[in-house]
Amino acid sequence: MTPTATSGVAGQAKTRASAFIDKARLWDRHAAMAKLGGTPNGGVTRLALSTEDIQARELLRDWAHALGFEFAMDDIANVYIRRHGRRDDLPPVMTGSHIDSQPKGGRFDGIYGVLAGVEALQAIDEADIQTERSIEVIGWTNEEGARFEHSLMGSKAFAFPDRLESLRAIKDRAGITVGEEVDRAWRTLSGVQRRPFGTSPYAYIEAHIEQGPIMESKGKQVGIVTGIQGWRRFVVRIEGESAHAGTCPQANRKDALMAATRVVTALSELMADPDDVVRFTVGRFNVLPNSLAVVPSTVEFTIDFRHPSEEVLTDRGDQIQGLLERNAAPCTTTLTEISREKPIHFEDDAFLAVRDAAAALPIPQMEILSGAGHDAQNMHKLCSTSMIFVPCERGISHNEAENATPEDLAAGAQVLADALVRLAG
Amino acid sequence: MTPTATSGVAGQAKTRASAFIDKARLWDRHAAMAKLGGTPNGGVTRLALSTEDIQARELLRDWAHALGFEFAMDDIANVYIRRHGRRDDLPPVMTGSHIDSQPKGGRFDGIYGVLAGVEALQAIDEADIQTERSIEVIGWTNEEGARFEHSLMGSKAFAFPDRLESLRAIKDRAGITVGEEVDRAWRTLSGVQRRPFGTSPYAYIEAHIEQGPIMESKGKQVGIVTGIQGWRRFVVRIEGESAHAGTCPQANRKDALMAATRVVTALSELMADPDDVVRFTVGRFNVLPNSLAVVPSTVEFTIDFRHPSEEVLTDRGDQIQGLLERNAAPCTTTLTEISREKPIHFEDDAFLAVRDAAAALPIPQMEILSGAGHDAQNMHKLCSTSMIFVPCERGISHNEAENATPEDLAAGAQVLADALVRLAG
Repeated sequence: MTPTATSGVAGQAKTRASAFIDKARLWDRHAAMAKLGGTPNGGVTRLALSTEDIQARELLRDWAHALGFEFAMDDIANVYIRRHGRRDDLPPVMTGSHIDSQPKGGRFDGIYGVLAGVEALQAIDEADIQTERSIEVIGWTNEEGARFEHSLMGSKAFAFPDRLESLRAIKDRAGITVGEEVDRAWRTLSGVQRRPFGTSPYAYIEAHIEQGPIMESKGKQVGIVTGIQGWRRFVVRIEGESAHAGTCPQANRKDALMAATRVVTALSELMADPDDVVRFTVGRFNVLPNSLAVVPSTVEFTIDFRHPSEEVLTDRGDQIQGLLERNAAPCTTTLTEISREKPIHFEDDAFLAVRDAAAALPIPQMEILSGAGHDAQNMHKLCSTSMIFVPCERGISHNEAENATPEDLAAGAQVLADALVRLAG
Repeated sequence: MTPTATSGVAGQAKTRASAFIDKARLWDRHAAMAKLGGTPNGGVTRLALSTEDIQARELLRDWAHALGFEFAMDDIANVYIRRHGRRDDLPPVMTGSHIDSQPKGGRFDGIYGVLAGVEALQAIDEADIQTERSIEVIGWTNEEGARFEHSLMGSKAFAFPDRLESLRAIKDRAGITVGEEVDRAWRTLSGVQRRPFGTSPYAYIEAHIEQGPIMESKGKQVGIVTGIQGWRRFVVRIEGESAHAGTCPQANRKDALMAATRVVTALSELMADPDDVVRFTVGRFNVLPNSLAVVPSTVEFTIDFRHPSEEVLTDRGDQIQGLLERNAAPCTTTLTEISREKPIHFEDDAFLAVRDAAAALPIPQMEILSGAGHDAQNMHKLCSTSMIFVPCERGISHNEAENATPEDLAAGAQVLADALVRLAG
């Protein structure tokens, strides 16, 4: 099945799945889900594999069964809701996102992608569309990495099953392992089908809130995601010498904070970008001995540098070492690259299905690059992958104040439903 | 008695007290004292009113009694060693410094001024000089403010006895009060004379290591201290907005760290001084939420700004508020001045006695301003006050590596002995 072959189906306006997307139903499911870990300030704390996170799986199971869909769970507690296609032997088309939240996080980050998938499946059902391939909604485990410090965990296990044992061994701050909590999820959801790892879908689409302000500022309801930018992350350590703030002449100082200030200023210049595409953040910054009357001996800070172009990541990232040497004297520096991810570009079937499905609908839309990382990064290694964004208020996310409108959520689900049909044929 | 009147005594070379300063004896007393709280790396941890700090008082008592001097202690556990003058009814001439050290501090900071005083007293005795006024060596309690966070405590209680009760109530991190530990010192040193507060000396001289590199770099053994620079200390708080490092465009950010970097750069320019007299330090610097992938919402940092001129302190210090407003946008700032001390200038009897005593000796010497604060600041409010500096290796202090030479320590004690005689008459 190719998108071209399926577009005929979607072209029949009366049977378009998007017409059956129910804005109120989708919103109500968000409200029901937000009760699981709901905070007094209107946010959600649903940490990965917590009781609330397991309850969310039960709720998804109940909805799936009520709609007549199949429900399954795998060995890292990812959950699957399946609507069978005519050719159940073919790799399915998948959609979804993560179930967990940040501590004091929002009601939409992650779970929107799961609930939009459920809504799309129900709409396809109500439109009475019979697809060739099966369509599955997946709810990923521990995307956030907030409780268990390994983000994108569920999709990692799905894409690389040989990592399962090491992922199960990761502990939270209380010493509880992922494995223990997965086993608890299995006891709670005993009786559900066990889904084996090791299969690749035909395609994967992830719907998500933008977590940035771009679409809102442009008045768009749907973002056709063109890719996920790559990143390079560094730790810079600057070593000077502590000294008495009252007695040590400025000329004799090796002030690590002043060196860090010069370095950060120079980094800002290196990362300057009139097009505002470069993302450059010094997020963690620690000073020693951090005492009022003592000239700082040591500063350690992080650089988070992201860009959609691997060439830019290489070119500017590789200039950091020389920049340190030129700006930190008389202090010494060490630079450590702690992680690097190549940019991902969505351009094949899944992307075209989203783009064409959106184009066929009267929804304000735009192409947009994902600044944040998503489970789609792991899925991209397995199959044709794309993403759909909807705006969130002021771009605020990872925050109890995270907000989105029922209209925008429904618009994203409409595009998702039609794109899934295009891919499933 | 004026310095002019006493200079005749010091002018008689054969009876000059400085001739009796014993370099080895002074060094040995430092070695003996350094065992009380000695660290494996050759430093000293003798926190205020700790067991070791009380043992140091016992050692001083034993030395005083062995030399035939009177020993007393007051209600904050400052100790006094007195050599009687002919006119015991006149206010005495005092010298001394503090007994306590920083954690992992050095063998000379503070205690040198006490031991140089003991050595001077012994030398005056051996020179058989009978003074009009009594001479006292004082060992101050808790100058460092490391254990009990109130520096210059002993001299504060001496100069302002009505503060005694509030000072006694100050607790260390274990909840033990100054008062409890003073009472313990009194139990340990039971039988010593209790010295009442409320008397002012005629003059006070404090010998101390420089804690800076100036004298060493100029090859001088003795510094005639011309004053103690004043300071203004501020806390700057910069408030921005946290945001996702991957999704938030630079143009939309309120990055508190980038604002702080601009502010610190502008402060460095404001405080720039080709003569290297201004002391400007950003010592404490804290970032929130201090997380790699989050744009910082808040930075709080301190400014320690010192200068010998009150006019400069006022002029440049008062420019900080405007500088914040110009450089922190789009973040907001608050500026709080947490302490201010006026510069002190030594220029009367005590200063002239030190200057003239030094000039009469073949010792490489220079005038120097104290960058650090000292108990002499409190004594300056009571009487004519001055200080004598000796170099320390590379200017390193508040550090186990703190070091000084027996020759320099003795040279300072020589000037001290002769200056005390000039003042005591």
